[in-house]
Amino acid sequence: MRFPPRLQQLLQAFRRLPGVGGKTAQRLAFHLLEHDRDGARVLAEALQAALHEVVRCSRCRMFAEAEVCGICSGPGRDGATLCVVESPADVMAIEESASYRGLYFVLHGRLSPLDGVGPAEIGAEQFASAVAAPEVREVILATSATVEGEATAAYLAAMAQQYGKHATRIAHGVPIGGELEYVDSSTLSRAIAGRIAVEQGSQDRA
Amino acid sequence: MRFPPRLQQLLQAFRRLPGVGGKTAQRLAFHLLEHDRDGARVLAEALQAALHEVVRCSRCRMFAEAEVCGICSGPGRDGATLCVVESPADVMAIEESASYRGLYFVLHGRLSPLDGVGPAEIGAEQFASAVAAPEVREVILATSATVEGEATAAYLAAMAQQYGKHATRIAHGVPIGGELEYVDSSTLSRAIAGRIAVEQGSQDRA
Repeated sequence: MRFPPRLQQLLQAFRRLPGVGGKTAQRLAFHLLEHDRDGARVLAEALQAALHEVVRCSRCRMFAEAEVCGICSGPGRDGATLCVVESPADVMAIEESASYRGLYFVLHGRLSPLDGVGPAEIGAEQFASAVAAPEVREVILATSATVEGEATAAYLAAMAQQYGKHATRIAHGVPIGGELEYVDSSTLSRAIAGRIAVEQGSQDRA
Repeated sequence: MRFPPRLQQLLQAFRRLPGVGGKTAQRLAFHLLEHDRDGARVLAEALQAALHEVVRCSRCRMFAEAEVCGICSGPGRDGATLCVVESPADVMAIEESASYRGLYFVLHGRLSPLDGVGPAEIGAEQFASAVAAPEVREVILATSATVEGEATAAYLAAMAQQYGKHATRIAHGVPIGGELEYVDSSTLSRAIAGRIAVEQGSQDRA
């Protein structure tokens, strides 16, 4: 005996989601059908609406509902810096830190030739036209500290330098509040290699 | 800065699912929008189709796409036994064990007055008419071994006995292949209290 076909299809559809296996798909589908049919309707409509309305900003490739996203078109942003990140979630994380007022460029991935992700997939052409803008002076490369993230940063830094722009990489090291003994060894070696001179009198100012 | 409204709505819709928090909702939504738009369309359509087509079997309350489900209308089922379970997933688990050929009754929950789940919510009225059928001789209560599951079993056993039917409870004890030292103490005490006499010569037959 199997579940009725529409229920099977729903289970299959849930299983396409990352990290969702057979048992989780069943739990999600049963919850919606048994206890929250309104939630199922809301989810179906939200998916359809997002599919139709959510596109990529034509300048920075961030998720947007217009041709240009809220950040690119927003007031009070500093057009002199361009921060390159791998995913829209990274944009949100940086915005929440309230430590950056420049513009972004979202790669939606990182260079990984074996997985078929080349310059076209990360929007290298769009990146070139963003960097070429005369007001841009610095490109901050905030890709992940993985082999592929570093390769992507190196590739984009070379592009930025072709346009005569200053390329920087965000600092990697021990997280604030992190205890040294629990930090992994590659992070520690980066933290030591990237050490910064203590300025005279800095302890007084802190 | 916030995500565009349709994306916010999609994140909210995902967060209604059990066990899905903010980070997971973001991961699911971004995966669909960035890498699997077809999967999003498939999921939306599967949800709509399931909402419209999947109903409860009028006899056993199992998920069905017709008035009567495949088990109730199927050939070769033994109408003399009725197995009462809490959820459709339990039906699938018992079917997969291939150890039962009777009919089912799905409660879609268990008695829990504090959560507003009373006899009406677990379909007591439908259960009464299922049990009243003259061919039913035994009601197997396969609700969970929790306080609420036991209370539900006791309630339904009393109902079955009112109709002069034999009520049984599935055995609880040490799982097959389970090592005794890792079994929790309430399971162990049930296994000891529910011990069964070893028949003479049973070891030869086994």
